[in-house]
Amino acid sequence: MDNFEYHNPVRIVFGKGSIAELRKLIPANARILMTYGGGSIKANGVYDQVRKALKGRRILEFGGIEPNPRYETLMRAVALGRGKKIDFLLAVGGGSVLDGTKFIAAAIPYRKGDPWAIVSEGAAVESAVALGSVLTLPATGSEMNTFAVISRNSSNEKLAFGSPHCYPRFSVLDPTVTFSLPPRQVKNGVVDAFVHVCEQYLTYENHAPLQARLAEAILLTLVEEGPKTIARPTDYAARANLMWSATMALNGLIGVGVPQDWATHTIGHEITALYGLDHAQTLAVVLPGVLASQKARKRGRLAQCAERVFGVKGGSPARRAEAGIRKIEGFFRSLGVKTRLSEYGIDADRCAVQVSERLKGRVPLGEHEALGTKEIAALLRTRA
Amino acid sequence: MDNFEYHNPVRIVFGKGSIAELRKLIPANARILMTYGGGSIKANGVYDQVRKALKGRRILEFGGIEPNPRYETLMRAVALGRGKKIDFLLAVGGGSVLDGTKFIAAAIPYRKGDPWAIVSEGAAVESAVALGSVLTLPATGSEMNTFAVISRNSSNEKLAFGSPHCYPRFSVLDPTVTFSLPPRQVKNGVVDAFVHVCEQYLTYENHAPLQARLAEAILLTLVEEGPKTIARPTDYAARANLMWSATMALNGLIGVGVPQDWATHTIGHEITALYGLDHAQTLAVVLPGVLASQKARKRGRLAQCAERVFGVKGGSPARRAEAGIRKIEGFFRSLGVKTRLSEYGIDADRCAVQVSERLKGRVPLGEHEALGTKEIAALLRTRA
Repeated sequence: MDNFEYHNPVRIVFGKGSIAELRKLIPANARILMTYGGGSIKANGVYDQVRKALKGRRILEFGGIEPNPRYETLMRAVALGRGKKIDFLLAVGGGSVLDGTKFIAAAIPYRKGDPWAIVSEGAAVESAVALGSVLTLPATGSEMNTFAVISRNSSNEKLAFGSPHCYPRFSVLDPTVTFSLPPRQVKNGVVDAFVHVCEQYLTYENHAPLQARLAEAILLTLVEEGPKTIARPTDYAARANLMWSATMALNGLIGVGVPQDWATHTIGHEITALYGLDHAQTLAVVLPGVLASQKARKRGRLAQCAERVFGVKGGSPARRAEAGIRKIEGFFRSLGVKTRLSEYGIDADRCAVQVSERLKGRVPLGEHEALGTKEIAALLRTRA
Repeated sequence: MDNFEYHNPVRIVFGKGSIAELRKLIPANARILMTYGGGSIKANGVYDQVRKALKGRRILEFGGIEPNPRYETLMRAVALGRGKKIDFLLAVGGGSVLDGTKFIAAAIPYRKGDPWAIVSEGAAVESAVALGSVLTLPATGSEMNTFAVISRNSSNEKLAFGSPHCYPRFSVLDPTVTFSLPPRQVKNGVVDAFVHVCEQYLTYENHAPLQARLAEAILLTLVEEGPKTIARPTDYAARANLMWSATMALNGLIGVGVPQDWATHTIGHEITALYGLDHAQTLAVVLPGVLASQKARKRGRLAQCAERVFGVKGGSPARRAEAGIRKIEGFFRSLGVKTRLSEYGIDADRCAVQVSERLKGRVPLGEHEALGTKEIAALLRTRA
């Protein structure tokens, strides 16, 4: 096990009816900016619950944060926040609203020029406006981590940043608010959480069996509970298990002291930036390619995953590893998420050239730094 | 899954050489009181490492905190802390030093009379002196939770309290400092951590499969890694895995949203108070008795534990549940921890009468509140 530091101060308030707790969670005298997305929270009652919980508080709103939240949009919220001296941001939505709000939180006090530098150059975040969240979509884990992924229209970029200052003070997780989610978003969420776990688990053994088993615990739960949420949208237990699994998938815990491989996310972001695919769709396409490309290096863990998560028995480790990759892709497909570029109308050769070109300055990827532009192009071609 | 709130802000600094990080972890101007136990930290080099890391800092010492830390001892540290205006407590030791230091932290600012009320009456802890820890013995999980168990000589009591103010700011976990631990303490630690998990897992199913699997992940790791630490004291990986498993066993995470059953600890504390057994020895005696007494109510989870943790296959759930209890007791015995009162020279009948009498005001115990004094006496008689 490698040395590590772990510190996650996010307060999770979980369960039916928990939005009412907002009243206690946000300081009484805060000047709140409530951020949200396209307005689904108005249709599903979440907006009303939040307003009711915060009745009498000083609260402004900023709606319209899009999926793959854009710098251009977010900077309007930054201007509003600065102008109105906002000192608490309440993100109400899914991972995009949360990620966007983390950027707003870091950008408001940023005074060293254009806050885009936080994302593009890793400029230091020295402080951030306090933020909390009401999560409406289990997927990204943003509700319990420091990370955010921001897109920029003008340069067609999609980039990640993270800072401990961007930890939410709290996140409210009420599984009932996910009952009305469109199936596509639910499926995407299952895939996203599943891939987050894989990227901290499908690497190599470094004598950290607990972290591996914690990862397997989440994968098994996603495999069992994910399909239930799609078949029976109002199954509270399934929704709750999916929601908590997605949070646990990326709150840092399963990744302490172990190697990680974020190649799939890095490559996937480029495909979204270029072709507009949903984030999880890109992951479902790319992960099997990364795993196949690195199967010799990842053999032990792939075989272990096949055995412990998908119940594959017998055969050599190499065969079990192959089976593991097939099972993972099969799981995504069983959810109804396509795993081939051609299924999204994308030419694999063109995609391979474009993505590897764009990643030139950021390779090599992977826990062994074995994915250069050549390998990335090659693995994308296999995803035709 | 039940509604829950989870908030654990402890910073874990884990790994070889991590004691040197103390310099960054404690504010430069703090008036530190370093607390410790019987002096083993002087023999194993931990004391020197701490003093070196904190060279030039304002630091006083309070040694001599005993196993099952005593109110009488701790109040001397409280007097010292008040007199010297201590504003940071650094606990260097195992669970007893940590627990004792949590009491000191809460007692120093307590002004409503005798701080014993915090323990005996659950008097509110409204603030506490900041504390951090250097853990030397993996066992209690105190390094990443709010709980402490304090004993009082004059009244022969052993009682628990907890407050969010008593979360350590940080805990430094260097597995190499555990290399020199006496085998008895290591075995006790494995049992203590194992029982912590059982008390959050061997209850009943409430549709929280992730929590169950996280619990099983820890149990499996303890079963695999615990014996290695005893056979090969300087096996870093085994020591690291045991240390992290013990922390994860009681940092709250596996217990969110699920029923819990702390009967074994409550009964065990009385046996320590009466007969002076090591904490873990009492758990090894009591847990199989609690499980057997409640086997009908706990059947599903016992059978699941037998299957998933100990590989028991086939047979009815009732038979697998029985096997599970035997396997757990067998695991404790395989470590060399005795599981019968007679093996400790204790008369079971007398113990049954005494313990049930002392627990009169605190029954019923267990997740179904099914353990009254009669049931407690009966189960202790089976542990002869």
